[in-house]
Amino acid sequence: MSSSSSIDQPNVITCKAMVAWEAGKDLVMEEVEVSPPQPLEIRVKVICTSLCRTDITAWESQAIFPRIFGHEASGIVESVGEGVTEFVKGDHVLTVFTGECKTCKHCESKKSNMCQVLGLERRGVMHSDQGTRFSVKGKPVYHYCAVSSFSEYTVVHSGCAVKVSPQAPLEKICLLSCGVAAGLGAAWNVADISEGSIVVIFGLGTVGLAVAQGAKLRGASQIIGVDINPEKYEKAKCFGVTDFLNPNEYNEPIQQVIKRISGGGTDYSFECIGNTGMVTTALQSCCDGWGLTVTLGVPKTNPEIASHYSAFLSGKTLKGSLFGGWKPKSDLPSLVNKYMNREIQVDEFITHNLPFEDINKAFTLMREGKCLRCVIHMPN
Amino acid sequence: MSSSSSIDQPNVITCKAMVAWEAGKDLVMEEVEVSPPQPLEIRVKVICTSLCRTDITAWESQAIFPRIFGHEASGIVESVGEGVTEFVKGDHVLTVFTGECKTCKHCESKKSNMCQVLGLERRGVMHSDQGTRFSVKGKPVYHYCAVSSFSEYTVVHSGCAVKVSPQAPLEKICLLSCGVAAGLGAAWNVADISEGSIVVIFGLGTVGLAVAQGAKLRGASQIIGVDINPEKYEKAKCFGVTDFLNPNEYNEPIQQVIKRISGGGTDYSFECIGNTGMVTTALQSCCDGWGLTVTLGVPKTNPEIASHYSAFLSGKTLKGSLFGGWKPKSDLPSLVNKYMNREIQVDEFITHNLPFEDINKAFTLMREGKCLRCVIHMPN
Repeated sequence: MSSSSSIDQPNVITCKAMVAWEAGKDLVMEEVEVSPPQPLEIRVKVICTSLCRTDITAWESQAIFPRIFGHEASGIVESVGEGVTEFVKGDHVLTVFTGECKTCKHCESKKSNMCQVLGLERRGVMHSDQGTRFSVKGKPVYHYCAVSSFSEYTVVHSGCAVKVSPQAPLEKICLLSCGVAAGLGAAWNVADISEGSIVVIFGLGTVGLAVAQGAKLRGASQIIGVDINPEKYEKAKCFGVTDFLNPNEYNEPIQQVIKRISGGGTDYSFECIGNTGMVTTALQSCCDGWGLTVTLGVPKTNPEIASHYSAFLSGKTLKGSLFGGWKPKSDLPSLVNKYMNREIQVDEFITHNLPFEDINKAFTLMREGKCLRCVIHMPN
Repeated sequence: MSSSSSIDQPNVITCKAMVAWEAGKDLVMEEVEVSPPQPLEIRVKVICTSLCRTDITAWESQAIFPRIFGHEASGIVESVGEGVTEFVKGDHVLTVFTGECKTCKHCESKKSNMCQVLGLERRGVMHSDQGTRFSVKGKPVYHYCAVSSFSEYTVVHSGCAVKVSPQAPLEKICLLSCGVAAGLGAAWNVADISEGSIVVIFGLGTVGLAVAQGAKLRGASQIIGVDINPEKYEKAKCFGVTDFLNPNEYNEPIQQVIKRISGGGTDYSFECIGNTGMVTTALQSCCDGWGLTVTLGVPKTNPEIASHYSAFLSGKTLKGSLFGGWKPKSDLPSLVNKYMNREIQVDEFITHNLPFEDINKAFTLMREGKCLRCVIHMPN
C-alpha cells in the first residue's frame, strides 16, 4: 500500500482489494483507493477475514456491483475520523455487520440488539453521506454489510467496530465477529437453553456447530444434528452433537424421526441453513407446550416462512435471531475474553487458512461444503 | 328429565339437548339419552353455557354429525363414575375443552398446559372407550371438545371439569371456562405484558377484549384495538382499549398506521380473529428487537401462517396460546376467586341472556357480530 497522508491528516490509501464485479463471478484483485475516514468513521488495516455464507449469498444474488464483500474480520485501527473518541490508531478491533450507536431506544433496551441507527445495513454505502470510501480508477466500489473486509484497508463507522484486547490473536477471533458469536448467542441469549434439555440443530455449518457448543456448555442432554453431508459428523462430535441425522437416509419426514428419538419433540430447534422450508420442519420437530424454534439463517430463495397454525396453537414459539442477540460493543469483548480463558472453542472452526490472493478458493470450498471457516490472511 | 337411576347406581337420563344434525343448519331440540358416567367420568347438570366462536366454526365446517356442541359452561355434578375421588354429587364445576390429567410430562411441567392425555379433543368421542354418551332414539350423537354443554345433562371426563366455589354465580363464571380466561391468560401467562408497554389487539370480540382487560390490569400505557365493526368501540373502552382503528377507514395497510401511532411498532400484538393473514399483519405491527405476537384465534379458512423471514431476523417472536396457558384445574379456581373479589370483570362481557330454546338466536347474534357473550340458561 502507498499512502500520501501524514498520521494526523489521513489521506487516500491505495491498496489491494478483492473486488466483485458481477454476481457469482470470481473476485478480482484490484488496486483500490480507500478514502480517509469521515467524521465518526475509522479506517482499519484488516489483518484477517473469514468467509461467511452470507457473503456468498449476497455475491450470488444481489444487484449492487462492483462491490467489496467480507464482514467477519479483525484488524488494527489505522486512522480515525473527526469526533471519534473511542478508538486510536493501533487499537485492535473486530468489525461488525450490525452496529451499536448506544443512544437509540434499542441500544438503551436490554431486550434488543437491533440498533436503529447502525443496524443491519446492506445497501452498500456509508451511513453518514450515503457514499462509498472505495474506488477503482475513480469508479466507486460499494461496501457490504458496513464492513467490506476483503480489502487490505477498509473504512467503517466507529459504531461498527469493537475494541478488543491486544493479546487476543486476530487470526482466530475474527470468527467471533459474526458466525461463531451468532450461534453461541442464539443458544444463550435467544433460546436461553436450560440444563438437561434436548436440542435439534438443522445445518451443521459454523453457525449450527456454534449453537451445538452453546447447548453443550449449557448442559443439554441430547444434541441432535441434522445435515445431508455425512462428512460433517466427525467435526460435529467435537462441538457436542450427540446424534447425527441425515434426512436422505430416511423414508419418513425427518421431524418424525426427531420426535421419536427425543421422546415427543425437542425442547429447542434451530434453523441454521437459511432454508425457510426447514423452519417449518424445525417447528414440527420441537415439542408442544414449550417447544421453541429459533431461526438464524438468511434464506437464499423463498423468503416466506409458513406453518400450519396448529403448531402455534399447541404452544410453540418461533423466534428470530440476528447476531445471536449480542450487542456488539457491549458484549463481544467478554466473548473474546471467554475465548482467551479457554471457556469457548474457536480454533476448531478453522478448517483452512489461505492467503488473500486465494480468496476464490475459499468461496469454492464453502460452496462445496468442504470447510467450516476459511481464514483469509492479509499480506503483512 | 326423567331418570331411571338411583343415586348410587346412576342410569340413563333422558333430557333435552340442542342437536346439530348438519353443518350450518339450525340446532334442533331433541330428547336425548345421556348414559351414566363411565370410570373416571362425571355426569353434569348444565346450568349455563355461553356461546363461543369456536362452536360456530366447528358447526359450520366440521364433518361429524349429529353432534352436541357447546364447551363454555358451568354446572353441578349429578353423578360420578367409578374411581372418581375429586368430585361428589352437588359440586359446582366449570367444564373445560382441554383437560389436566396431572400426571403427564406436560401437566408436571410449569411451562405447559398441553396435557398429553386429555388435551384438545375434537374427535367427538369420549377418551376412555372412544364411544359417545349421547343418543337420540338409539342413534349415537357425537360430543364436541370433550364437553357438549348444549344439553341439560352431559358426561365429561373428570379431568375436563374444575371444581369451583359454590358461592360463585354459575350464570357468570361460565365465561371463565373458555373465552375470558383465554384472553386474560394470553396477556398474563403467554405474553407476560409489562407495565407501560404498548399493545395492539386484532379483533375485539370476547377474547380480544379479555386480552385488553389483561393488558390494562398489567398497566399497559396504550392499548390499540383493531376491528372493522365500529360498534365495538364503546364496549372496548370499558376494557381498557385506548385507541380504536378500523382498517376500512384507512387507505394504507393498518400495520403502517399502528407503527406510526405506536412510535415504531407495538411491544405486543394479539391475533384474536382467527385469520391467519392477520397473524402476518400482527407480526408486522410489532416492533423489532422484542416485539411479540401472540396468536389465539382458530382460523375458519387458510390454516397456513406465513411471514417474510425478515420479520424474525429483526428479532420478533411468534407464540401460540391455547386457553391462555392456564392449566385448568390448577389455575381456574383462583381466576374465579379474582372475579369474586372484583379484581377482574366478567359480567361486562355478557351482552345477552337467552333461554335454552333460543340458542339459535345466539348463533345468529354472534355470526352478525351483534354480541360479545350470549349466556344460555338451562331450564330449572
